[in-house]
Amino acid sequence: MSADDVTEEYLNAAISIARQSGVLVQEAFHKEKLIETKQSFADLVTQTDEAVENLIHSFFMDKFPEHKFIGEETVAKGEKCELTDAPTWIIDPVDGTTNFVHRIPEVCISIGLTINKEMEVGVIYLPMLDRMYTTRKGHGAFCNGEKLSVQKAESLNTSIVIVESGSDRNQDVIKRKMENTRKIVTNSRGIRSYGSAAFNLCRVAEGCAEAYIEYSLHIWDIAAGALLVREAGGIAIDPEGGDLDLRSRRILCASTEKIALELSQILDHLQFERD
Amino acid sequence: MSADDVTEEYLNAAISIARQSGVLVQEAFHKEKLIETKQSFADLVTQTDEAVENLIHSFFMDKFPEHKFIGEETVAKGEKCELTDAPTWIIDPVDGTTNFVHRIPEVCISIGLTINKEMEVGVIYLPMLDRMYTTRKGHGAFCNGEKLSVQKAESLNTSIVIVESGSDRNQDVIKRKMENTRKIVTNSRGIRSYGSAAFNLCRVAEGCAEAYIEYSLHIWDIAAGALLVREAGGIAIDPEGGDLDLRSRRILCASTEKIALELSQILDHLQFERD
Repeated sequence: MSADDVTEEYLNAAISIARQSGVLVQEAFHKEKLIETKQSFADLVTQTDEAVENLIHSFFMDKFPEHKFIGEETVAKGEKCELTDAPTWIIDPVDGTTNFVHRIPEVCISIGLTINKEMEVGVIYLPMLDRMYTTRKGHGAFCNGEKLSVQKAESLNTSIVIVESGSDRNQDVIKRKMENTRKIVTNSRGIRSYGSAAFNLCRVAEGCAEAYIEYSLHIWDIAAGALLVREAGGIAIDPEGGDLDLRSRRILCASTEKIALELSQILDHLQFERD
Repeated sequence: MSADDVTEEYLNAAISIARQSGVLVQEAFHKEKLIETKQSFADLVTQTDEAVENLIHSFFMDKFPEHKFIGEETVAKGEKCELTDAPTWIIDPVDGTTNFVHRIPEVCISIGLTINKEMEVGVIYLPMLDRMYTTRKGHGAFCNGEKLSVQKAESLNTSIVIVESGSDRNQDVIKRKMENTRKIVTNSRGIRSYGSAAFNLCRVAEGCAEAYIEYSLHIWDIAAGALLVREAGGIAIDPEGGDLDLRSRRILCASTEKIALELSQILDHLQFERD
Protein backbone atom coordinates (compact mmCIF):
# COMPACT_ATOMS: atom_id res chain seq x y z
CA MET A 1 0.00 0.00 0.00
CA SER A 2 1.19 3.53 -0.76
CA ALA A 3 1.42 6.09 2.04
CA ASP A 4 -1.60 7.71 0.45
CA ASP A 5 -3.63 4.50 0.61
CA VAL A 6 -2.63 4.05 4.23
CA THR A 7 -3.88 7.51 5.20
CA GLU A 8 -7.07 6.87 3.25
CA GLU A 9 -7.53 3.69 5.29
CA TYR A 10 -7.05 5.71 8.50
CA LEU A 11 -9.69 8.20 7.36
CA ASN A 12 -12.17 5.44 6.55
CA ALA A 13 -11.55 3.81 9.92
CA ALA A 14 -12.21 7.12 11.67
CA ILE A 15 -15.45 7.64 9.72
CA SER A 16 -16.61 4.14 10.56
CA ILE A 17 -16.03 4.42 14.32
CA ALA A 18 -17.45 7.97 14.41
CA ARG A 19 -20.68 6.65 12.95
CA GLN A 20 -20.78 3.73 15.40
CA SER A 21 -20.15 6.12 18.29
CA GLY A 22 -22.94 8.31 17.02
CA VAL A 23 -25.45 5.60 17.86
CA LEU A 24 -24.44 5.78 21.54
CA VAL A 25 -24.93 9.56 21.52
CA GLN A 26 -28.30 9.27 19.76
CA GLU A 27 -29.54 6.65 22.23
CA ALA A 28 -28.57 8.72 25.26
CA PHE A 29 -29.49 12.16 23.90
CA HIS A 30 -33.09 12.37 25.09
CA LYS A 31 -32.61 10.39 28.32
CA GLU A 32 -31.86 11.70 31.80
CA LYS A 33 -28.09 11.86 32.28
CA LEU A 34 -25.91 11.32 35.30
CA ILE A 35 -23.76 14.45 35.32
CA GLU A 36 -20.46 14.99 37.08
CA THR A 37 -18.43 18.18 37.18
CA LYS A 38 -14.70 18.53 36.55
CA GLN A 39 -12.77 21.83 36.84
CA SER A 40 -15.78 24.03 37.67
CA PHE A 41 -19.54 23.71 38.22
CA ALA A 42 -19.90 24.48 34.49
CA ASP A 43 -17.42 21.82 33.29
CA LEU A 44 -19.53 18.68 32.80
CA VAL A 45 -18.96 15.03 31.99
CA THR A 46 -21.44 12.18 31.51
CA GLN A 47 -21.29 8.40 31.24
CA THR A 48 -21.71 8.76 27.48
CA ASP A 49 -18.43 10.70 27.20
CA GLU A 50 -16.67 7.73 28.81
CA ALA A 51 -18.58 5.06 26.89
CA VAL A 52 -17.84 6.69 23.53
CA GLU A 53 -14.17 7.20 24.39
CA ASN A 54 -13.82 3.57 25.46
CA LEU A 55 -15.45 2.39 22.23
CA ILE A 56 -13.15 4.52 20.06
CA HIS A 57 -10.07 3.63 22.10
CA SER A 58 -10.71 -0.14 21.81
CA PHE A 59 -11.43 0.18 18.11
CA PHE A 60 -8.14 1.89 17.28
CA MET A 61 -6.03 -0.20 19.67
CA ASP A 62 -7.46 -3.31 18.06
CA LYS A 63 -7.09 -2.10 14.47
CA PHE A 64 -3.80 -0.21 14.78
CA PRO A 65 -2.08 -1.56 17.93
CA GLU A 66 1.13 0.38 17.29
CA HIS A 67 -0.71 3.74 17.29
CA LYS A 68 -0.88 6.13 20.26
CA PHE A 69 -4.05 7.59 21.74
CA ILE A 70 -4.96 10.87 23.45
CA GLY A 71 -8.54 11.13 24.67
CA GLU A 72 -10.27 13.74 26.79
CA GLU A 73 -11.56 11.29 29.38
CA THR A 74 -8.35 9.20 29.45
CA VAL A 75 -6.37 12.37 30.22
CA ALA A 76 -8.98 13.42 32.80
CA LYS A 77 -8.25 10.14 34.57
CA GLY A 78 -4.54 10.96 34.83
CA GLU A 79 -2.99 9.66 31.60
CA LYS A 80 -0.31 11.98 30.24
CA CYS A 81 -1.14 14.04 27.16
CA GLU A 82 1.97 13.11 25.19
CA LEU A 83 2.24 13.95 21.51
CA THR A 84 5.05 11.99 19.84
CA ASP A 85 5.99 11.35 16.20
CA ALA A 86 4.00 8.09 16.25
CA PRO A 87 0.58 8.06 14.59
CA THR A 88 -1.64 9.41 17.37
CA TRP A 89 -5.42 9.41 17.50
CA ILE A 90 -6.70 12.48 19.33
CA ILE A 91 -10.29 12.11 20.48
CA ASP A 92 -13.04 14.20 21.95
CA PRO A 93 -15.79 11.62 22.44
CA VAL A 94 -18.50 14.24 23.06
CA ASP A 95 -17.43 17.73 22.09
CA GLY A 96 -20.06 20.04 23.50
CA THR A 97 -20.92 17.96 26.57
CA THR A 98 -23.01 20.82 27.95
CA ASN A 99 -24.97 20.90 24.68
CA PHE A 100 -25.43 17.14 25.03
CA VAL A 101 -26.68 17.50 28.61
CA HIS A 102 -29.12 20.24 27.57
CA ARG A 103 -30.27 18.35 24.44
CA ILE A 104 -28.84 21.06 22.17
CA PRO A 105 -28.18 19.16 18.94
CA GLU A 106 -24.75 20.65 18.14
CA VAL A 107 -22.82 17.76 19.68
CA CYS A 108 -19.74 16.33 17.96
CA ILE A 109 -17.56 13.26 18.01
CA SER A 110 -14.13 14.60 17.07
CA ILE A 111 -11.36 12.31 15.83
CA GLY A 112 -8.00 13.65 14.67
CA LEU A 113 -4.86 11.81 13.63
CA THR A 114 -1.35 13.22 13.78
CA ILE A 115 1.73 11.61 12.24
CA ASN A 116 5.11 13.17 13.06
CA LYS A 117 3.05 15.66 15.09
CA GLU A 118 1.35 16.90 11.89
CA MET A 119 -2.43 16.73 11.47
CA GLU A 120 -3.17 14.17 8.74
CA VAL A 121 -6.81 13.12 9.18
CA GLY A 122 -9.84 14.75 10.76
CA VAL A 123 -13.38 13.52 11.26
CA ILE A 124 -16.13 15.42 13.07
CA TYR A 125 -19.52 13.75 13.26
CA LEU A 126 -22.73 15.35 14.52
CA PRO A 127 -24.97 12.38 15.22
CA MET A 128 -28.07 14.44 16.06
CA LEU A 129 -27.87 16.30 12.74
CA ASP A 130 -26.27 13.44 10.77
CA ARG A 131 -23.48 15.64 9.46
CA MET A 132 -20.16 13.93 8.78
CA TYR A 133 -17.25 16.33 8.27
CA THR A 134 -14.12 14.68 6.89
CA THR A 135 -10.68 15.80 5.82
CA ARG A 136 -7.25 14.52 4.86
CA LYS A 137 -4.19 16.72 4.56
CA GLY A 138 -3.85 17.83 0.95
CA HIS A 139 -7.19 16.35 -0.10
CA GLY A 140 -9.76 18.99 0.84
CA ALA A 141 -12.56 19.20 3.40
CA PHE A 142 -16.04 17.73 3.03
CA CYS A 143 -19.40 17.47 4.74
CA ASN A 144 -21.50 14.44 3.82
CA GLY A 145 -19.32 14.19 0.72
CA GLU A 146 -19.79 17.79 -0.39
CA LYS A 147 -16.64 19.93 -0.75
CA LEU A 148 -16.32 22.79 1.74
CA SER A 149 -14.85 26.26 1.22
CA VAL A 150 -14.35 29.07 3.69
CA GLN A 151 -16.04 32.40 2.99
CA LYS A 152 -13.48 35.11 2.20
CA ALA A 153 -14.91 38.35 3.61
CA GLU A 154 -12.99 41.54 2.91
CA SER A 155 -12.19 42.43 6.47
CA LEU A 156 -13.14 41.95 10.11
CA ASN A 157 -15.95 44.50 9.96
CA THR A 158 -17.85 42.39 7.44
CA SER A 159 -17.15 39.15 9.34
CA ILE A 160 -19.00 36.94 11.79
CA VAL A 161 -16.70 35.73 14.57
CA ILE A 162 -17.39 32.71 16.75
CA VAL A 163 -16.28 33.07 20.37
CA GLU A 164 -16.86 30.99 23.48
CA SER A 165 -16.87 32.00 27.11
CA GLY A 166 -15.97 28.42 28.11
CA SER A 167 -16.41 26.59 31.38
CA ASP A 168 -13.66 28.27 33.41
CA ARG A 169 -15.35 30.26 36.18
CA ASN A 170 -12.24 32.13 37.36
CA GLN A 171 -13.28 35.82 37.40
CA ASP A 172 -10.05 37.13 35.93
CA VAL A 173 -10.32 34.73 33.00
CA ILE A 174 -14.00 35.59 32.38
CA LYS A 175 -13.28 39.34 32.50
CA ARG A 176 -10.43 39.10 30.02
CA LYS A 177 -12.51 36.96 27.67
CA MET A 178 -15.41 39.44 27.90
CA GLU A 179 -13.12 42.34 27.09
CA ASN A 180 -11.93 40.41 24.03
CA THR A 181 -15.54 39.79 23.05
CA ARG A 182 -16.35 43.50 23.46
CA LYS A 183 -13.56 44.37 21.03
CA ILE A 184 -14.70 41.72 18.54
CA VAL A 185 -18.33 42.90 18.65
CA THR A 186 -17.18 46.50 18.17
CA ASN A 187 -15.16 45.63 15.08
CA SER A 188 -17.25 42.91 13.40
CA ARG A 189 -20.77 42.14 12.18
CA GLY A 190 -21.30 40.15 15.34
CA ILE A 191 -20.47 37.06 17.32
CA ARG A 192 -21.96 33.59 17.56
CA SER A 193 -21.50 30.95 20.29
CA TYR A 194 -22.55 27.36 19.65
CA GLY A 195 -20.98 25.61 22.65
CA SER A 196 -18.81 23.13 20.74
CA ALA A 197 -15.29 23.90 19.53
CA ALA A 198 -15.42 21.17 16.88
CA PHE A 199 -18.74 22.48 15.53
CA ASN A 200 -17.36 26.04 15.54
CA LEU A 201 -14.49 24.86 13.35
CA CYS A 202 -16.97 23.15 11.00
CA ARG A 203 -18.92 26.41 10.68
CA VAL A 204 -15.76 28.29 9.68
CA ALA A 205 -14.79 25.52 7.24
CA GLU A 206 -18.20 25.56 5.55
CA GLY A 207 -18.17 29.34 5.18
CA CYS A 208 -20.87 30.33 7.71
CA ALA A 209 -18.49 32.29 9.94
CA GLU A 210 -15.30 34.04 8.89
CA ALA A 211 -13.39 33.47 12.13
CA TYR A 212 -13.27 31.61 15.42
CA ILE A 213 -11.18 32.42 18.43
CA GLU A 214 -10.90 30.48 21.69
CA TYR A 215 -8.63 30.43 24.70
CA SER A 216 -8.50 27.58 27.27
CA LEU A 217 -9.57 24.73 25.04
CA HIS A 218 -7.66 21.43 24.63
CA ILE A 219 -5.86 19.45 21.93
CA TRP A 220 -8.84 17.08 21.45
CA ASP A 221 -11.16 20.03 20.73
CA ILE A 222 -9.18 21.15 17.68
CA ALA A 223 -7.05 18.25 16.35
CA ALA A 224 -9.64 17.34 13.69
CA GLY A 225 -11.26 20.74 13.10
CA ALA A 226 -8.13 22.82 12.59
CA LEU A 227 -7.18 20.58 9.65
CA LEU A 228 -10.75 20.83 8.32
CA VAL A 229 -10.50 24.64 8.27
CA ARG A 230 -7.13 24.57 6.52
CA GLU A 231 -8.30 22.07 3.93
CA ALA A 232 -11.34 24.29 3.27
CA GLY A 233 -8.92 27.10 2.37
CA GLY A 234 -8.75 28.87 5.73
CA ILE A 235 -6.02 29.34 8.26
CA ALA A 236 -5.55 27.98 11.77
CA ILE A 237 -2.84 29.69 13.80
CA ASP A 238 -1.84 30.68 17.30
CA PRO A 239 -3.84 33.80 18.32
CA GLU A 240 -0.59 35.77 18.64
CA GLY A 241 0.14 35.04 14.98
CA GLY A 242 2.66 32.19 15.14
CA ASP A 243 2.20 28.56 14.12
CA LEU A 244 -0.65 26.68 15.70
CA ASP A 245 0.59 24.64 18.65
CA LEU A 246 -1.98 21.89 19.25
CA ARG A 247 -1.11 21.70 22.96
CA SER A 248 -1.08 25.44 23.69
CA ARG A 249 -4.78 25.57 24.67
CA ARG A 250 -5.71 28.29 22.16
CA ILE A 251 -6.56 28.79 18.51
CA LEU A 252 -7.41 31.45 15.96
CA CYS A 253 -9.08 30.39 12.74
CA ALA A 254 -10.05 32.66 9.90
CA SER A 255 -10.97 32.49 6.25
CA THR A 256 -8.18 34.94 5.30
CA GLU A 257 -4.86 36.07 6.72
CA LYS A 258 -6.08 39.67 6.78
CA ILE A 259 -9.02 38.85 9.06
CA ALA A 260 -6.76 36.70 11.27
CA LEU A 261 -4.29 39.56 11.63
CA GLU A 262 -6.99 42.13 12.37
CA LEU A 263 -8.35 39.87 15.09
CA SER A 264 -4.94 39.00 16.52
CA GLN A 265 -4.08 42.68 16.92
CA ILE A 266 -7.10 43.59 19.04
CA LEU A 267 -7.02 40.60 21.40
CA ASP A 268 -5.58 40.07 24.85
CA HIS A 269 -3.80 36.72 24.45
CA LEU A 270 -4.62 34.57 27.47
CA GLN A 271 -2.22 31.76 28.37
CA PHE A 272 -2.99 28.49 30.12
CA GLU A 273 -0.92 25.56 31.30
CA ARG A 274 -0.10 23.43 28.26
CA ASP A 275 -1.86 20.13 27.59
CA MET B 1 -67.61 29.95 12.88
CA SER B 2 -66.71 29.97 16.58
CA ALA B 3 -63.99 32.33 17.81
CA ASP B 4 -61.84 29.22 18.20
CA ASP B 5 -62.36 28.22 14.56
CA VAL B 6 -61.50 31.74 13.47
CA THR B 7 -58.20 31.72 15.34
CA GLU B 8 -57.45 28.28 13.93
CA GLU B 9 -58.05 29.73 10.45
CA TYR B 10 -55.60 32.57 11.24
CA LEU B 11 -52.99 30.04 12.35
CA ASN B 12 -53.40 27.97 9.20
CA ALA B 13 -53.14 31.09 7.04
CA ALA B 14 -49.90 32.06 8.81
CA ILE B 15 -48.46 28.56 8.33
CA SER B 16 -49.35 28.63 4.65
CA ILE B 17 -47.76 32.01 3.90
CA ALA B 18 -44.69 31.17 6.06
CA ARG B 19 -44.08 28.12 3.91
CA GLN B 20 -44.55 30.09 0.68
CA SER B 21 -42.15 32.76 1.96
CA GLY B 22 -39.67 30.04 2.80
CA VAL B 23 -39.24 29.29 -0.88
CA LEU B 24 -38.01 32.86 -1.49
CA VAL B 25 -35.48 32.48 1.33
CA GLN B 26 -34.32 29.09 0.07
CA GLU B 27 -33.87 30.39 -3.48
CA ALA B 28 -31.81 33.39 -2.37
CA PHE B 29 -29.84 31.69 0.40
CA HIS B 30 -26.81 30.52 -1.57
CA LYS B 31 -26.71 33.44 -4.01
CA GLU B 32 -24.73 36.68 -3.76
CA LYS B 33 -26.85 39.29 -1.97
CA LEU B 34 -27.11 43.03 -2.36
CA ILE B 35 -26.67 44.25 1.21
CA GLU B 36 -27.63 47.61 2.65
CA THR B 37 -27.01 48.82 6.18
CA LYS B 38 -29.53 50.49 8.48
CA GLN B 39 -28.71 51.83 11.99
CA SER B 40 -25.06 50.68 12.03
CA PHE B 41 -22.56 48.91 9.78
CA ALA B 42 -23.67 45.67 11.46
CA ASP B 43 -27.42 46.20 10.92
CA LEU B 44 -28.14 44.62 7.52
CA VAL B 45 -31.04 44.37 5.12
CA THR B 46 -31.35 42.58 1.77
CA GLN B 47 -33.81 42.51 -1.11
CA THR B 48 -35.15 39.22 0.23
CA ASP B 49 -36.26 40.90 3.49
CA GLU B 50 -38.37 43.27 1.42
CA ALA B 51 -39.64 40.65 -1.03
CA VAL B 52 -40.78 38.34 1.77
CA GLU B 53 -42.45 41.18 3.67
CA ASN B 54 -44.29 42.32 0.54
CA LEU B 55 -45.49 38.77 -0.10
CA ILE B 56 -46.78 38.33 3.45
CA HIS B 57 -48.31 41.81 3.54
CA SER B 58 -50.24 41.27 0.29
CA PHE B 59 -51.38 37.84 1.43
CA PHE B 60 -52.92 39.09 4.68
CA MET B 61 -54.36 42.31 3.22
CA ASP B 62 -56.03 40.20 0.56
CA LYS B 63 -57.28 37.51 2.91
CA PHE B 64 -58.18 39.66 5.93
CA PRO B 65 -58.54 43.24 4.62
CA GLU B 66 -59.79 44.57 7.95
CA HIS B 67 -56.62 43.44 9.77
CA LYS B 68 -53.66 45.69 10.62
CA PHE B 69 -50.04 45.00 9.77
CA ILE B 70 -46.69 45.78 11.41
CA GLY B 71 -43.63 44.66 9.49
CA GLU B 72 -39.93 45.31 10.05
CA GLU B 73 -39.29 46.70 6.57
CA THR B 74 -42.56 48.67 6.42
CA VAL B 75 -41.61 50.40 9.68
CA ALA B 76 -38.04 50.92 8.41
CA LYS B 77 -39.59 52.85 5.50
CA GLY B 78 -41.37 55.22 7.87
CA GLU B 79 -44.71 53.56 8.66
CA LYS B 80 -45.73 53.99 12.29
CA CYS B 81 -45.50 50.98 14.58
CA GLU B 82 -48.99 51.24 16.00
CA LEU B 83 -50.46 48.41 18.04
CA THR B 84 -54.25 48.75 18.36
CA ASP B 85 -57.00 46.38 19.52
CA ALA B 86 -57.60 45.30 15.91
CA PRO B 87 -56.21 41.94 14.80
CA THR B 88 -52.64 42.86 13.88
CA TRP B 89 -50.13 40.73 12.01
CA ILE B 90 -46.60 41.41 13.26
CA ILE B 91 -43.95 40.23 10.84
CA ASP B 92 -40.23 39.76 10.69
CA PRO B 93 -39.74 38.58 7.11
CA VAL B 94 -36.15 37.44 7.70
CA ASP B 95 -35.25 37.22 11.38
CA GLY B 96 -31.50 36.77 11.49
CA THR B 97 -30.69 38.79 8.37
CA THR B 98 -26.99 38.62 9.19
CA ASN B 99 -27.25 34.83 9.41
CA PHE B 100 -29.00 34.91 6.02
CA VAL B 101 -26.24 37.05 4.51
CA HIS B 102 -23.56 34.73 5.90
CA ARG B 103 -25.43 31.56 4.88
CA ILE B 104 -25.86 30.53 8.51
CA PRO B 105 -28.96 28.32 8.38
CA GLU B 106 -30.70 29.67 11.51
CA VAL B 107 -32.90 32.10 9.60
CA CYS B 108 -36.57 32.56 10.51
CA ILE B 109 -39.76 33.93 9.07
CA SER B 110 -41.65 35.17 12.14
CA ILE B 111 -45.40 35.84 12.03
CA GLY B 112 -47.33 36.85 15.15
CA LEU B 113 -50.95 37.89 15.51
CA THR B 114 -52.32 40.06 18.30
CA ILE B 115 -56.02 40.66 19.00
CA ASN B 116 -56.87 43.26 21.62
CA LYS B 117 -53.10 43.66 21.97
CA GLU B 118 -52.82 40.05 23.22
CA MET B 119 -50.70 37.49 21.38
CA GLU B 120 -53.05 34.91 19.87
CA VAL B 121 -51.09 33.12 17.13
CA GLY B 122 -47.39 32.59 16.45
CA VAL B 123 -45.60 30.92 13.56
CA ILE B 124 -41.82 30.74 13.16
CA TYR B 125 -40.52 28.91 10.11
CA LEU B 126 -36.88 28.03 9.43
CA PRO B 127 -36.84 27.34 5.70
CA MET B 128 -33.22 26.16 5.58
CA LEU B 129 -33.86 23.56 8.30
CA ASP B 130 -37.53 22.95 7.43
CA ARG B 131 -38.67 23.51 10.99
CA MET B 132 -42.17 24.93 11.43
CA TYR B 133 -42.87 26.19 14.96
CA THR B 134 -46.54 26.94 15.62
CA THR B 135 -48.62 28.09 18.54
CA ARG B 136 -52.07 29.34 19.47
CA LYS B 137 -52.89 30.88 22.84
CA GLY B 138 -54.22 28.15 25.10
CA HIS B 139 -53.44 25.36 22.66
CA GLY B 140 -49.76 24.55 23.22
CA ALA B 141 -46.58 24.97 21.20
CA PHE B 142 -45.38 22.66 18.45
CA CYS B 143 -42.52 22.06 16.04
CA ASN B 144 -43.40 20.13 12.87
CA GLY B 145 -46.46 18.92 14.76
CA GLU B 146 -44.57 17.69 17.82
CA LYS B 147 -45.51 19.20 21.18
CA LEU B 148 -42.84 21.36 22.83
CA SER B 149 -41.99 21.74 26.52
CA VAL B 150 -39.48 23.99 28.19
CA GLN B 151 -36.75 22.35 30.29
CA LYS B 152 -37.19 23.19 33.99
CA ALA B 153 -33.68 23.42 35.43
CA GLU B 154 -33.39 23.92 39.16
CA SER B 155 -31.66 27.26 39.08
CA LEU B 156 -29.55 29.65 37.02
CA ASN B 157 -26.32 27.83 37.77
CA THR B 158 -27.56 24.70 35.98
CA SER B 159 -29.00 26.71 33.08
CA ILE B 160 -27.90 27.64 29.58
CA VAL B 161 -28.76 31.26 28.79
CA ILE B 162 -29.04 32.67 25.27
CA VAL B 163 -27.79 36.25 24.90
CA GLU B 164 -27.14 38.46 21.89
CA SER B 165 -24.77 41.37 21.50
CA GLY B 166 -26.98 42.76 18.70
CA SER B 167 -26.19 45.19 15.91
CA ASP B 168 -26.00 48.42 17.91
CA ARG B 169 -22.37 49.62 17.79
CA ASN B 170 -22.72 52.36 20.42
CA GLN B 171 -19.86 51.73 22.87
CA ASP B 172 -21.88 52.42 26.00
CA VAL B 173 -24.55 49.92 24.90
CA ILE B 174 -21.95 47.26 24.03
CA LYS B 175 -20.15 47.70 27.36
CA ARG B 176 -23.34 47.39 29.37
CA LYS B 177 -24.40 44.29 27.42
CA MET B 178 -20.95 42.73 27.94
CA GLU B 179 -21.11 43.38 31.67
CA ASN B 180 -24.51 41.64 31.71
CA THR B 181 -23.01 38.73 29.79
CA ARG B 182 -20.12 38.51 32.26
CA LYS B 183 -22.59 38.18 35.13
CA ILE B 184 -24.62 35.56 33.27
CA VAL B 185 -21.51 33.49 32.42
CA THR B 186 -20.37 33.71 36.05
CA ASN B 187 -23.69 32.40 37.36
CA SER B 188 -24.75 29.87 34.71
CA ARG B 189 -23.51 26.82 32.79
CA GLY B 190 -22.81 29.11 29.86
CA ILE B 191 -24.21 31.24 27.12
CA ARG B 192 -25.16 30.62 23.51
CA SER B 193 -25.69 33.15 20.67
CA TYR B 194 -27.44 32.08 17.48
CA GLY B 195 -28.03 35.45 15.82
CA SER B 196 -31.82 35.24 15.52
CA ALA B 197 -34.24 36.32 18.25
CA ALA B 198 -37.04 34.14 16.88
CA PHE B 199 -34.78 31.08 16.78
CA ASN B 200 -33.57 31.85 20.32
CA LEU B 201 -37.18 31.78 21.50
CA CYS B 202 -37.71 28.46 19.70
CA ARG B 203 -34.70 26.98 21.49
CA VAL B 204 -36.12 28.01 24.88
CA ALA B 205 -39.57 26.65 23.93
CA GLU B 206 -38.14 23.29 22.87
CA GLY B 207 -36.11 22.94 26.06
CA CYS B 208 -32.56 23.37 24.72
CA ALA B 209 -31.87 26.54 26.69
CA GLU B 210 -33.41 27.54 30.00
CA ALA B 211 -33.43 31.29 29.38
CA TYR B 212 -33.01 34.04 26.84
CA ILE B 213 -32.42 37.72 27.48
CA GLU B 214 -32.16 40.53 24.98
CA TYR B 215 -32.20 44.30 25.02
CA SER B 216 -32.71 46.50 21.93
CA LEU B 217 -34.79 44.13 19.85
CA HIS B 218 -38.16 44.96 18.25
CA ILE B 219 -41.79 43.88 18.43
CA TRP B 220 -41.49 41.78 15.23
CA ASP B 221 -38.61 39.79 16.73
CA ILE B 222 -40.72 38.48 19.61
CA ALA B 223 -44.43 38.69 18.74
CA ALA B 224 -44.59 35.04 17.65
CA GLY B 225 -41.81 33.55 19.81
CA ALA B 226 -42.87 34.95 23.18
CA LEU B 227 -46.23 33.16 22.81
CA LEU B 228 -44.41 29.99 21.73
CA VAL B 229 -42.35 30.03 24.95
CA ARG B 230 -45.42 30.60 27.12
CA GLU B 231 -47.40 27.86 25.39
CA ALA B 232 -44.44 25.50 25.93
CA GLY B 233 -44.76 26.14 29.67
CA GLY B 234 -42.22 28.92 30.06
CA ILE B 235 -42.49 32.57 30.91
CA ALA B 236 -41.89 35.71 28.88
CA ILE B 237 -41.66 38.93 30.87
CA ASP B 238 -40.01 42.31 30.99
CA PRO B 239 -36.41 41.90 32.20
CA GLU B 240 -37.19 44.04 35.28
CA GLY B 241 -39.86 41.53 36.26
CA GLY B 242 -43.09 43.18 35.11
CA ASP B 243 -45.42 42.16 32.31
CA LEU B 244 -43.92 41.80 28.87
CA ASP B 245 -44.50 44.93 26.83
CA LEU B 246 -44.17 43.96 23.16
CA ARG B 247 -43.04 47.45 22.18
CA SER B 248 -40.51 48.02 24.99
CA ARG B 249 -37.55 46.64 22.99
CA ARG B 250 -36.59 44.01 25.56
CA ILE B 251 -37.52 40.55 26.77
CA LEU B 252 -36.62 37.95 29.37
CA CYS B 253 -37.73 34.37 28.78
CA ALA B 254 -37.13 31.46 31.08
CA SER B 255 -38.40 27.99 31.72
CA THR B 256 -39.21 28.80 35.36
CA GLU B 257 -40.02 31.87 37.42
CA LYS B 258 -37.07 31.15 39.73
CA ILE B 259 -34.56 31.28 36.87
CA ALA B 260 -36.21 34.43 35.48
CA LEU B 261 -35.96 36.12 38.88
CA GLU B 262 -32.33 35.08 39.40
CA LEU B 263 -31.47 36.53 35.98
CA SER B 264 -33.50 39.70 36.45
CA GLN B 265 -31.71 40.46 39.70
CA ILE B 266 -28.17 40.38 38.29
CA LEU B 267 -28.85 42.40 35.12
CA ASP B 268 -28.42 46.05 34.25
CA HIS B 269 -31.73 46.84 32.52
CA LEU B 270 -31.01 48.85 29.39
CA GLN B 271 -33.77 51.03 27.98
CA PHE B 272 -34.36 52.04 24.38
CA GLU B 273 -36.85 54.24 22.62
CA ARG B 274 -40.13 52.31 22.30
CA ASP B 275 -41.22 50.80 19.01
